[in-house]
Amino acid sequence: MFSGAQISLYPMTDDFVTVIVDALSALDPYRDRLRIETDDISTLLVGTPDVVFNAMRDLFVAAAASGRHCVLHASISRGCPGEPDDPMCHTPELTNPMAPLDERKARALATVASAALSGQSVAAQFSLYTLGIDQHMHEIYGCIDFVKSSSVFDKSKNFCTKLRGDAAPVFATVGEALLRFGHPAGHVTIDLTVSANSPTPL
Amino acid sequence: MFSGAQISLYPMTDDFVTVIVDALSALDPYRDRLRIETDDISTLLVGTPDVVFNAMRDLFVAAAASGRHCVLHASISRGCPGEPDDPMCHTPELTNPMAPLDERKARALATVASAALSGQSVAAQFSLYTLGIDQHMHEIYGCIDFVKSSSVFDKSKNFCTKLRGDAAPVFATVGEALLRFGHPAGHVTIDLTVSANSPTPL
Repeated sequence: MFSGAQISLYPMTDDFVTVIVDALSALDPYRDRLRIETDDISTLLVGTPDVVFNAMRDLFVAAAASGRHCVLHASISRGCPGEPDDPMCHTPELTNPMAPLDERKARALATVASAALSGQSVAAQFSLYTLGIDQHMHEIYGCIDFVKSSSVFDKSKNFCTKLRGDAAPVFATVGEALLRFGHPAGHVTIDLTVSANSPTPL
Repeated sequence: MFSGAQISLYPMTDDFVTVIVDALSALDPYRDRLRIETDDISTLLVGTPDVVFNAMRDLFVAAAASGRHCVLHASISRGCPGEPDDPMCHTPELTNPMAPLDERKARALATVASAALSGQSVAAQFSLYTLGIDQHMHEIYGCIDFVKSSSVFDKSKNFCTKLRGDAAPVFATVGEALLRFGHPAGHVTIDLTVSANSPTPL
């Protein structure tokens, strides 16, 4: 199994470099459990989904604390057949047999409900793609059911589902979507956008 | 068939609203062939892939002409079984029978080679997801072969492929990836990021 994300942070300010550099220390508690590579478009985080999602959450909350309109985008993947197996990415959730859909939804909801709040309000939207299977919409609809039952569901949109609420349950919801839907050993990806401090009226 | 994109434009400047508003007139030539809906995270463009890609290209080139570091993100989709059929999205490429892979690669390369240059240099990365089929990597590897032969291939990264060059062949390459790979009637999505005027050294 190989899992991780290509992430980018966009602070809408002349001083975007300072906002990004100041936020980077939020990654420090995770650096021993991540492989990190940066270029001019994105930063690669390789690690288990829980570490990757906690690191993204803390990085984004730190940037949003600047008060500036900030957006984080992440292209998240696990189980891509084209990527090498990596011991750094091993996690029991992705090696155990596939549990029934209702059991997976219940576990996902319990994890989201137990997330300690961050104090940062965000809006987010994401698309889940379960690849390499015939009935891919079955898993996607199962995930949408879970998200609609969670505390941070906002609305369905074309191509994606929108969330709103505290950053902690929002990132936990998307993390559970990656972990619990699609076959544990399967190829699953997420296209995630998280926004804070937008001046656009809701 | 239903096709379109959720797009977001991120100018990294205090004056991001002005950069966005000034760029919007670039969409005017396409408005009669698009359905457009905006909220606080993204703008939905519904239309045929060629119209959607040309509109995204012109919008991004207009924003990048500000000289500011600008990023466009797009979550692009065609053929999602959960979306309604829409006459506004009908295009022959997505109703004809599936051509052999080599023929599709050749057509894609010819389209990219004929793109009139925009004069705006960009970097970009994208991931192609061909859904609802068992051998999804076959189509993805076919697409990667095409991209590696195109004039704008930069490098392979984990989870995505990176492009660099003039905005016109870059957007054309990603548009051809959506049109020509995966079954014509199938569900195919792309996670696209395009960047200009980045201060990060290459």
